[in-house]
Amino acid sequence: MRYKTSLEVIMSPIVSDSWQTIKRRVKTEWRVKTMASLKVPASVPPPYEDAEQLNKAFKGWGTNEGLIISILAHRNAAQRNLIRQVYAEAYGQDLLKDLDKELSSDFERVVLLWTLDPAERDAYLANEATKRFTSSNWVLMEIACTRSSHDLFKVRQAYHARHKKSLEEDVAYHTTGDFRKLLVPLVSAFRYEGEEVNTMLAKSEAKTLHEKISDKAYSDDEIIRILTTRSKAQLNATLNHYNNAFGNAINKNLKEDADNEFLKLLRATIKCLTYPEKYFEKLLRLAIKKIGTDEWALTRVVTTRAEVDMERIKEEYHRRNSVTLAHDIAGEASGDYERMLLALIGHGDA
Amino acid sequence: MRYKTSLEVIMSPIVSDSWQTIKRRVKTEWRVKTMASLKVPASVPPPYEDAEQLNKAFKGWGTNEGLIISILAHRNAAQRNLIRQVYAEAYGQDLLKDLDKELSSDFERVVLLWTLDPAERDAYLANEATKRFTSSNWVLMEIACTRSSHDLFKVRQAYHARHKKSLEEDVAYHTTGDFRKLLVPLVSAFRYEGEEVNTMLAKSEAKTLHEKISDKAYSDDEIIRILTTRSKAQLNATLNHYNNAFGNAINKNLKEDADNEFLKLLRATIKCLTYPEKYFEKLLRLAIKKIGTDEWALTRVVTTRAEVDMERIKEEYHRRNSVTLAHDIAGEASGDYERMLLALIGHGDA
Repeated sequence: MRYKTSLEVIMSPIVSDSWQTIKRRVKTEWRVKTMASLKVPASVPPPYEDAEQLNKAFKGWGTNEGLIISILAHRNAAQRNLIRQVYAEAYGQDLLKDLDKELSSDFERVVLLWTLDPAERDAYLANEATKRFTSSNWVLMEIACTRSSHDLFKVRQAYHARHKKSLEEDVAYHTTGDFRKLLVPLVSAFRYEGEEVNTMLAKSEAKTLHEKISDKAYSDDEIIRILTTRSKAQLNATLNHYNNAFGNAINKNLKEDADNEFLKLLRATIKCLTYPEKYFEKLLRLAIKKIGTDEWALTRVVTTRAEVDMERIKEEYHRRNSVTLAHDIAGEASGDYERMLLALIGHGDA
Repeated sequence: MRYKTSLEVIMSPIVSDSWQTIKRRVKTEWRVKTMASLKVPASVPPPYEDAEQLNKAFKGWGTNEGLIISILAHRNAAQRNLIRQVYAEAYGQDLLKDLDKELSSDFERVVLLWTLDPAERDAYLANEATKRFTSSNWVLMEIACTRSSHDLFKVRQAYHARHKKSLEEDVAYHTTGDFRKLLVPLVSAFRYEGEEVNTMLAKSEAKTLHEKISDKAYSDDEIIRILTTRSKAQLNATLNHYNNAFGNAINKNLKEDADNEFLKLLRATIKCLTYPEKYFEKLLRLAIKKIGTDEWALTRVVTTRAEVDMERIKEEYHRRNSVTLAHDIAGEASGDYERMLLALIGHGDA
């Protein structure tokens, strides 16, 4: 026997632990309830009635888009899943297939993405982001950094089921160099989600980050390690120490070369991990102000955040742009696409 | 809208999928049942009776080790968990703490490790493997490569609960260079577990592996990517192609320098991923034949494999050493430690 086991460590702190976990979950659930923009009516019809109405919306002369919006844009993920199940049983067809047949272009994409279960939707978006014509390091980073650890794991499970491969396998295969070095550990992470912070560690890792950045070693192993493995609470403490000790927010020091795509992704990663609402505000701002609106980004942010923190994002948007997000969406989008987006951000009747 | 969504892809293959998953699970369960060495009696006493007997074993003059073995070495993980729960309720104390108080040395370690839930046990072993005096890259690799994807994820969950950090966080912090480069993605992996094999890919990645190995670029990004992200079925196909195309098993070509610790770990990784029984046989052989038996390795392999594939490992052991594992354990271990090990490998009365 080489070394005496510290038996204090082997004891399982089962009880205190689950209490911590419960507290955290309650806190998260409460937060989500108040931050989501989705409006579900006080009394929701039973799923077979919703399924029947949707089926009616597809029939007859022309599709009834208004009816589709009035139902789907006002049901939460669990309710939408139930409607899909009941629909498949009643009409022998996947609701998504019928929506696909009846709808088109941006409206189709927003309805289909919204109707998917969140983990399935993220798996779909992530897979798209590894394909040649739709590849996007940003989408991969965004999914990896703004979902909870447990939700990211559900995405990886959904990815197996849907794509018969692992998420990290496709990400590793379709990226190279520094981008691979950052993205593979990001999508594979299962970060600790407790609030505990180790101050000594925060100070020493802030120093490490500053040294590497001063040397312009932006993709150094240590920078990658810290950003991809530390808990969000710990990382936040580290970056606060960075700011205090070196007089600059870290992202200021990562800006030397405005055209460096890796640095841009690194800054966005840090923003997603520490201030996701600001990240999404900027994404929406750029998507809307662009010549030729970026509907893919707009649709992605609205469908993925409506049930999570869209109220906070709207707040940031208003503060930064002096107009409401609803105002800008109404100005840039039109028709059923506009109506669906507005409903999802909470500007439709539930 | 930049690119037309391939809507065939967005449809969820829910039905065929869960059927595949069910078939796989049934297959795995059947395999485990026939490969495990653990013997559980046909009629198991209720957990409160086991708890009472264990409590009795601790009382009076001296501990009744025989009674402890006769109970704990013949209960599966679910049964042991129940006993722990009932014990805590009845006696207001964690069973593990009482076992710790009453037992000592190698016998203590085997009983405590065995009694832990498999995911908790692996989290404990992995944490130990990141500590200075007990650090072991091999233990980390072994846990990452020989558990199922789902079981490895349960280890990561147990690691959060027990150590208030993530597994990959500790592994990344306590390793450097090539070892970090290999171990972090190994412990973070959630490999696809389907049997599907892409033959084209297997051929091209076998070629890539051969090129890098010929250049002695043993820790090249591509080698790491292939070994840490591909499914075990895919990896097996790739390595078979390697053998066919280049006339040598890959591990033969990774042997140039017998003292290179990274190469040793790489070979062991490949063995764990493709032929775990052989890996464990060798580990047991070396642990037993060593001058001064390596009890830590012996205890680890027996406690972690008794409920999984110890029958297959015993078969390999017999074939390779011309004596049975039970014979060699009886020769090297003694007393209660020996009795516990023999019971776990199926040589005690259930």
